[in-house]
Amino acid sequence: MDISNKFLDHAYGYDDVSIVPGEFTINPELADTKFKIQELEFDIPVLASAMDAVVSPEFAINFNSKGGLAVLNLEGIYTKYNDYTEPLESVISAKENESTSIMQKIYSKDIDENLVAERVKEIKEKSSICAVSVTPANTKRLSPIAIEAGADIIVVQSTVTTPRHFSKSITGLNMSDLKKQIKIPLIVGNCVSYNVALEFMNTGVDGILVGVGPGAACTTREVTGLGVPQVTATIDCSLARDTYFKETGRYVSIITDGGIRTGGDFCKSFASGADAVMIGTPLAQTEEAPGKGFNWGMATPDPALPRGTRVSVGRKWALDILLNGPSSASDGTQNFMGALKNCMGFVGAYSIKDMHKAKMIVAPSIKTEGKFFQLRK
Amino acid sequence: MDISNKFLDHAYGYDDVSIVPGEFTINPELADTKFKIQELEFDIPVLASAMDAVVSPEFAINFNSKGGLAVLNLEGIYTKYNDYTEPLESVISAKENESTSIMQKIYSKDIDENLVAERVKEIKEKSSICAVSVTPANTKRLSPIAIEAGADIIVVQSTVTTPRHFSKSITGLNMSDLKKQIKIPLIVGNCVSYNVALEFMNTGVDGILVGVGPGAACTTREVTGLGVPQVTATIDCSLARDTYFKETGRYVSIITDGGIRTGGDFCKSFASGADAVMIGTPLAQTEEAPGKGFNWGMATPDPALPRGTRVSVGRKWALDILLNGPSSASDGTQNFMGALKNCMGFVGAYSIKDMHKAKMIVAPSIKTEGKFFQLRK
Amino acid sequence: MDISNKFLDHAYGYDDVSIVPGEFTINPELADTKFKIQELEFDIPVLASAMDAVVSPEFAINFNSKGGLAVLNLEGIYTKYNDYTEPLESVISAKENESTSIMQKIYSKDIDENLVAERVKEIKEKSSICAVSVTPANTKRLSPIAIEAGADIIVVQSTVTTPRHFSKSITGLNMSDLKKQIKIPLIVGNCVSYNVALEFMNTGVDGILVGVGPGAACTTREVTGLGVPQVTATIDCSLARDTYFKETGRYVSIITDGGIRTGGDFCKSFASGADAVMIGTPLAQTEEAPGKGFNWGMATPDPALPRGTRVSVGRKWALDILLNGPSSASDGTQNFMGALKNCMGFVGAYSIKDMHKAKMIVAPSIKTEGKFFQLRK
Amino acid sequence: MDISNKFLDHAYGYDDVSIVPGEFTINPELADTKFKIQELEFDIPVLASAMDAVVSPEFAINFNSKGGLAVLNLEGIYTKYNDYTEPLESVISAKENESTSIMQKIYSKDIDENLVAERVKEIKEKSSICAVSVTPANTKRLSPIAIEAGADIIVVQSTVTTPRHFSKSITGLNMSDLKKQIKIPLIVGNCVSYNVALEFMNTGVDGILVGVGPGAACTTREVTGLGVPQVTATIDCSLARDTYFKETGRYVSIITDGGIRTGGDFCKSFASGADAVMIGTPLAQTEEAPGKGFNWGMATPDPALPRGTRVSVGRKWALDILLNGPSSASDGTQNFMGALKNCMGFVGAYSIKDMHKAKMIVAPSIKTEGKFFQLRK
Repeated sequence: MDISNKFLDHAYGYDDVSIVPGEFTINPELADTKFKIQELEFDIPVLASAMDAVVSPEFAINFNSKGGLAVLNLEGIYTKYNDYTEPLESVISAKENESTSIMQKIYSKDIDENLVAERVKEIKEKSSICAVSVTPANTKRLSPIAIEAGADIIVVQSTVTTPRHFSKSITGLNMSDLKKQIKIPLIVGNCVSYNVALEFMNTGVDGILVGVGPGAACTTREVTGLGVPQVTATIDCSLARDTYFKETGRYVSIITDGGIRTGGDFCKSFASGADAVMIGTPLAQTEEAPGKGFNWGMATPDPALPRGTRVSVGRKWALDILLNGPSSASDGTQNFMGALKNCMGFVGAYSIKDMHKAKMIVAPSIKTEGKFFQLRK
Repeated sequence: MDISNKFLDHAYGYDDVSIVPGEFTINPELADTKFKIQELEFDIPVLASAMDAVVSPEFAINFNSKGGLAVLNLEGIYTKYNDYTEPLESVISAKENESTSIMQKIYSKDIDENLVAERVKEIKEKSSICAVSVTPANTKRLSPIAIEAGADIIVVQSTVTTPRHFSKSITGLNMSDLKKQIKIPLIVGNCVSYNVALEFMNTGVDGILVGVGPGAACTTREVTGLGVPQVTATIDCSLARDTYFKETGRYVSIITDGGIRTGGDFCKSFASGADAVMIGTPLAQTEEAPGKGFNWGMATPDPALPRGTRVSVGRKWALDILLNGPSSASDGTQNFMGALKNCMGFVGAYSIKDMHKAKMIVAPSIKTEGKFFQLRK
Repeated sequence: MDISNKFLDHAYGYDDVSIVPGEFTINPELADTKFKIQELEFDIPVLASAMDAVVSPEFAINFNSKGGLAVLNLEGIYTKYNDYTEPLESVISAKENESTSIMQKIYSKDIDENLVAERVKEIKEKSSICAVSVTPANTKRLSPIAIEAGADIIVVQSTVTTPRHFSKSITGLNMSDLKKQIKIPLIVGNCVSYNVALEFMNTGVDGILVGVGPGAACTTREVTGLGVPQVTATIDCSLARDTYFKETGRYVSIITDGGIRTGGDFCKSFASGADAVMIGTPLAQTEEAPGKGFNWGMATPDPALPRGTRVSVGRKWALDILLNGPSSASDGTQNFMGALKNCMGFVGAYSIKDMHKAKMIVAPSIKTEGKFFQLRK
Repeated sequence: MDISNKFLDHAYGYDDVSIVPGEFTINPELADTKFKIQELEFDIPVLASAMDAVVSPEFAINFNSKGGLAVLNLEGIYTKYNDYTEPLESVISAKENESTSIMQKIYSKDIDENLVAERVKEIKEKSSICAVSVTPANTKRLSPIAIEAGADIIVVQSTVTTPRHFSKSITGLNMSDLKKQIKIPLIVGNCVSYNVALEFMNTGVDGILVGVGPGAACTTREVTGLGVPQVTATIDCSLARDTYFKETGRYVSIITDGGIRTGGDFCKSFASGADAVMIGTPLAQTEEAPGKGFNWGMATPDPALPRGTRVSVGRKWALDILLNGPSSASDGTQNFMGALKNCMGFVGAYSIKDMHKAKMIVAPSIKTEGKFFQLRK
């Protein structure tokens, strides 16, 4: 064993850390949780994931009306099928061992550009804010259609996105150019490191999605060995935001995407530096979600290398209960906003930016200390 | 991954650490375990938690007669219901999945100030020391009633309490003012850090409860992401006590509250710096406890955000067996005082203050090394 | 506890680490995965383990035709039995608790030198590249026979091999002498440290197998306490390669051997510095493998101290699916080459040598973060 | 969280570490495993624990004849009962939940001094070396009787023993005085730290038992919170031995006692610095052991605070198989000496003292890396 030039830093996730109470406390009613993307302001700092089992056009309208921001996937079932009930049902009712191959078949259909415009219009007709997600490869083709149809926010998203992508056959997407062409806010992702986040900020983007592989329905980490746990990834990208803000005066939002299951995870994201979080599976568990108790990763239908899976998450309670309670569950799976406001109270944080200064610790035993009888349940 | 300005310290709990035997040993009979709050002295350095399933007026009298100090919760079933048998029974007999909502209903009743006085008197009538607990919000209203009725010790307790609490609608509780008004000892909590403990000491309090979220019936850590494992929390608050004592000559007791299940955990609290410990669930397991084999956290009935749960802990043995043995169990769940005196013998500690100097180690494998056949049981 | 002169370094395995995405990305089609041993070039940087349940003469031909390199064990069933169907079947059909003793009996037969030559010829007849493995003790006797019969690569392999072995009764194998005598490439192993790898390189060998004890069918770590996890072992031996290359200009291949179960593990080997990997159990799971759903370690039949075991791994899918997909599994057990190329894309690695520069992190929670519903499956 | 003056060192056990192969290797036949206590030399560096389920007079004779050293407990069933068959049988046949209280009753009988002498004579009659163990409190009374009857080695042993023990009622045992009085070798224990080991060496003892709480039938760690994992404890005490030897030229043996289950654990003890090991449960598993498939800790029958338990370990194989094989098990539970010699070969250690120089690493994943299919068994 010799000194290695391959220095291995330690990285931490939600279960590894804990938030330390503040030196003063405030009443939860004083906690302001607002979140902004350019001039658009949201009461609830939560984005609904661009996953087909989470955000349908109906769900988007519903979720946005509660104060959050839903993102519609423009490259899935909703833009491949005019009547999406049947393909959704096929995925949901597939047997466990056949679900991946059935998804591969259903998702092999081409995107219908007319449906792209139509889905945006369905959302805008209800005076809802409309955010849509496209992959880098399809951004040039689909984003003009979506913007033309009235989209308010473009999200360019793939498993790993960097400002510099090299390929043989196509001219890569240039984020600076895209940002100049479109007039609406642009969010990109996903990334997990300081340098990439900073380079993205220099291209002019308005928000950055943080997270590679944490999602409940994602298997990227198992399949490709890639990933950084969310607490460390969020801390690093938030540092880039703070550096960039100090240098330029422009504030780019950091949105932690994936891996959140409880109010505790939710709060730890903000303590790690997030301005907002994107959640999928907790929303897939609500009665209103199109997945009817299931969720699946958007890389699952990949024809050659699925990097996701369908998970059975249960159809548990109303969206309102998840977001605002009241809760009658004691395990942290309900009333995320109540949890956040309580936590902000305990930490003494009047705003999300105050939460960024919360002290955290690495605490290997935080999930089990004293919990003998709960773990036995 | 870049150098983070968010330095993450490591924090440890009972299962992470172990006590190292001393360089000399003493006979357990030489170990003095006395504990003092001002002029009040206790043979057994144990407080019974202010939880409704643990301390009823009867249990308080019984426990205090054994040499410890029971704390009665002034904001629960005993001060909301004159005849508390029925509401206790309702919680105990509730089905697992309905227990939280049933508790929310039962605890929604208002506190009856007459009962506050009456419960204190019931305890004082038996010439027992009477300690009562109130939350910060109700301290100004309830503590004068309790003191008037004869209470000996006031405990101001909530999930997280700090010397500076800010709110919109009410004038916050000022601990220095309170301390000046009341003539009896004042214990406050809970806190987990050096700075908050020190600031509390400067307000004149006599004891500090240490612990956020470790309790067997508490889910604060899962729900809000908040918490510090007990060994680190106790070490930090004890350091504040030592610093404060060096500067002022006044000794403020550190009481570790929550997370203790075995004699081993109990001993580790003292080795971490505790002057006394507060236990709930081990007492809820005794035949004398009002919870009849169940325990529940006092934040469980919160109407919007329950941060506790009911746990089935079993009705196991007499209180005497738990405290002083003799034990016929070999897993550390009986004879806590025997365990402490034995440990003090092995460590060479004549007093609890000597125990504070015991060496501890972080030992990830301490729970499993060599225990193949025990773990298989 | 005093400062120890026995400094204990930390060492890491596949489950402890994760690969960080790069600062730029490339299309997977641009990723070059070629691997060379002297002038022999392979499209697929994978060696099939010299295990009887993995590589039969037929399997060797098949595997080599796909672009990888199979190694035939010259000291097992194939060179002890002319008709190997029956002994293979005996091991496969043995009851769980009798499998080790049955193997001890079957493997007690002597090696037939005629069969050594014959097996090599069987492979060469199909114009396949033929690599064979021998233990140090039998190298002088068996390698000339294999070379005479047409073998292309000699692998000298045992649990732990060092350049200096001392014994009472026999003249030890001198690797420098061997290297001078034979004209074909020489691979040796296994080793796990910088110094041993470097000393081997100085003897002139062309490749080094890295790994002590990680194999799915190996119990060396349990039986003898020996072993280094594969990520650290590979990093250390790769450093020796880089040092040696800088000093001599000669590039010796590092081949990580054992412990790989998923595409993620596979990718982490290359990120740790491997030029190629040797796999056994994932191949034993293919329909084409002679083990028919079982695998067993080559140290299992040791008459006095078995250091391996037979494992039931299932007969799962075709070799092509394992290597190149397409995959309909989402857990990383198929399409290893697709996983590697995708990972190289995410990391921005045009070649295996670029992969060696990939950043990795130690991430204790990488296997569980967000995976509540997958772990429950 | 502030800088703590209570610095917590990390300590490691068998499952946390692994042995790194050496830079050269030797044939196992060259490995010399001899162990000496003064002029007494043993081929097998193994002591059989002074536990009633392990060492009866018959077993002592048998074990000593194989080259090891059995220690008879002079304060248990064999010296309390003339006919020990019945009390042994009562413990063995007790129901799980009654075993502790039954043991408390059986062991409450007084020691019969005539039986002390008789048991020693039984062993000496067979020309066997006779080692006996006494607790510090009974040493002055029982050791002269044992020596008079012919005992060759005295072992003074309790859970934690230090050179300075303070008590109210009795004059403490002075180890220097004892050492001067008796002419035969003296072994004391148990201890786990450098300072205590060194202080013991200065009293003149010949061997030190290392280990607090690791035993398979011991619950000291759970009950009192006390303990240091065996690898760290052994390293520390061995350092004291090396320091003492450098200063005085006298070599005091370090004997690691407890926690060993496999050949791997056994080898790691020597790599940690042990000159010999004491094992109980692996011997209790042999057909020859008096416990007939059970073992129990000698602190289990404590009338007030049991710190041990009865474990069902199975009656597995002959003592010869455990010590010298041949093995047909692949999990490291047989052929400990074969494992040690193999390990010494891989490490390049000609002697136990060479083994002390073996490199070890901390490797959290060493037990699981690649072992998916074995763990599933």
